[in-house]
Amino acid sequence: MSKYVFHYFDTKALGESSRLLMAYGGQEFEDHRFSNEEWPAFKPKTLYGQAPILEIDGKQYAQSLAISRYLGRNFGLVGDTPEDALEIDQNVDLLNDLRLKAVEVHYERDEAAREARYTKYAENVFPDYLDKLNALVVKNNGHLALGKLTWGDFVLAGVFDYLKMMLRIPDLEKKYPAFQKVIDNVYSIPKVKAYADNAPPTLY
Amino acid sequence: MSKYVFHYFDTKALGESSRLLMAYGGQEFEDHRFSNEEWPAFKPKTLYGQAPILEIDGKQYAQSLAISRYLGRNFGLVGDTPEDALEIDQNVDLLNDLRLKAVEVHYERDEAAREARYTKYAENVFPDYLDKLNALVVKNNGHLALGKLTWGDFVLAGVFDYLKMMLRIPDLEKKYPAFQKVIDNVYSIPKVKAYADNAPPTLY
Ligand SMILES: N[C@@H](CCC(=O)N[C@@H](CS)C(=O)NCC(=O)O)C(=O)O
Ligand SMILES: N[C@@H](CCC(=O)N[C@@H](CS)C(=O)NCC(=O)O)C(=O)O
Repeated sequence: MSKYVFHYFDTKALGESSRLLMAYGGQEFEDHRFSNEEWPAFKPKTLYGQAPILEIDGKQYAQSLAISRYLGRNFGLVGDTPEDALEIDQNVDLLNDLRLKAVEVHYERDEAAREARYTKYAENVFPDYLDKLNALVVKNNGHLALGKLTWGDFVLAGVFDYLKMMLRIPDLEKKYPAFQKVIDNVYSIPKVKAYADNAPPTLY
Repeated sequence: MSKYVFHYFDTKALGESSRLLMAYGGQEFEDHRFSNEEWPAFKPKTLYGQAPILEIDGKQYAQSLAISRYLGRNFGLVGDTPEDALEIDQNVDLLNDLRLKAVEVHYERDEAAREARYTKYAENVFPDYLDKLNALVVKNNGHLALGKLTWGDFVLAGVFDYLKMMLRIPDLEKKYPAFQKVIDNVYSIPKVKAYADNAPPTLY
């Protein structure tokens, strides 16, 4: 069996979907978590200077969604046809577009600019994405795509707390109960639950 | 044979990689291009209110990279193994991260904010991404990944003029001759060249 090491900050954010997928697939991995203080020393050792990184038998791979797609494929979570895979990718990218809008706000250092953008996006951007995603999940019966479990569900479940934090909507799953269904569908899988119960608790 | 319609603005930008891939694969498609003026009437007819859209036998698919990955897969441009596919995805996502940084600048409506951000990114963000991408392409001998033609090359070639415009570096391919190699590798393929020679000329 190949040796997997997963390198990421000690948060869920962009790493958790891949961790959850490895738990689902029964793929053992070394869960290398580092602090913000440790990062500068590790950064130059990574493929492009960013995390997460999945290391397979010593070879590094970057990019959270690329890694999760790869794991999803290996564990039979990409549907049956190329069109199925496209539909998952498409819906994951819509979720990612929302995340990127939230990132644009959250990581703006200038406070006045950040708050002005937040106000604007909270009115004109976030609700639109959230409504579209909600409609998708409702249509897919508690899943992000294909009406069944795919790696897209792991992306939503893994990034959810991070997204809520950046969107500043702590009860997002109450406003959109369909999202809670996706999360429950993922975390109720016994192997995933076993991982999550034992993972270091993090806020997001 | 399935009927393909590709809906996008009359620009290359996020649509051209898929058009080039369909040309490469000999996949006939209706090249539905619309103007900015026509868009508001068409927008509500699209899956999520955004373009590009690939319509296959009447079913719509969104998200430029998801569509290009799908086409690449159908036309044998995803490498041989799941790890190959991951490596392409990873490098495409790095290119896309750069594009998104450029988008953050280019589409900022407030002029002062835009120019301040441009100055900052031109110093601290763009060169770093460009150097990383250049190193990748040099290592891969004029390709984005795997040392051979993949759908990632079509993404770089298709988005290049758009990226140059947003980065405000009109001679980007002179500064990074490796990028020109990727472009030449794509556009010198006879079917791609035939498409490009007949496509409506657009600035980016
Ligand atoms: N598009 C990349 C983004 C990766 C990214 O932004 N990583 C952040 C942490 S969430 C990082 O490494 N930041 C530290 C740094 O850039 O030095 C992905 O999805 O993996
Ligand atoms: N992540 C999406 C972004 C799509 C996107 O931003 N599309 C723009 C044109 S390049 C659009 O449809 N703009 C018009 C609108 O949003 O009304 C993709 O890669 O396809």
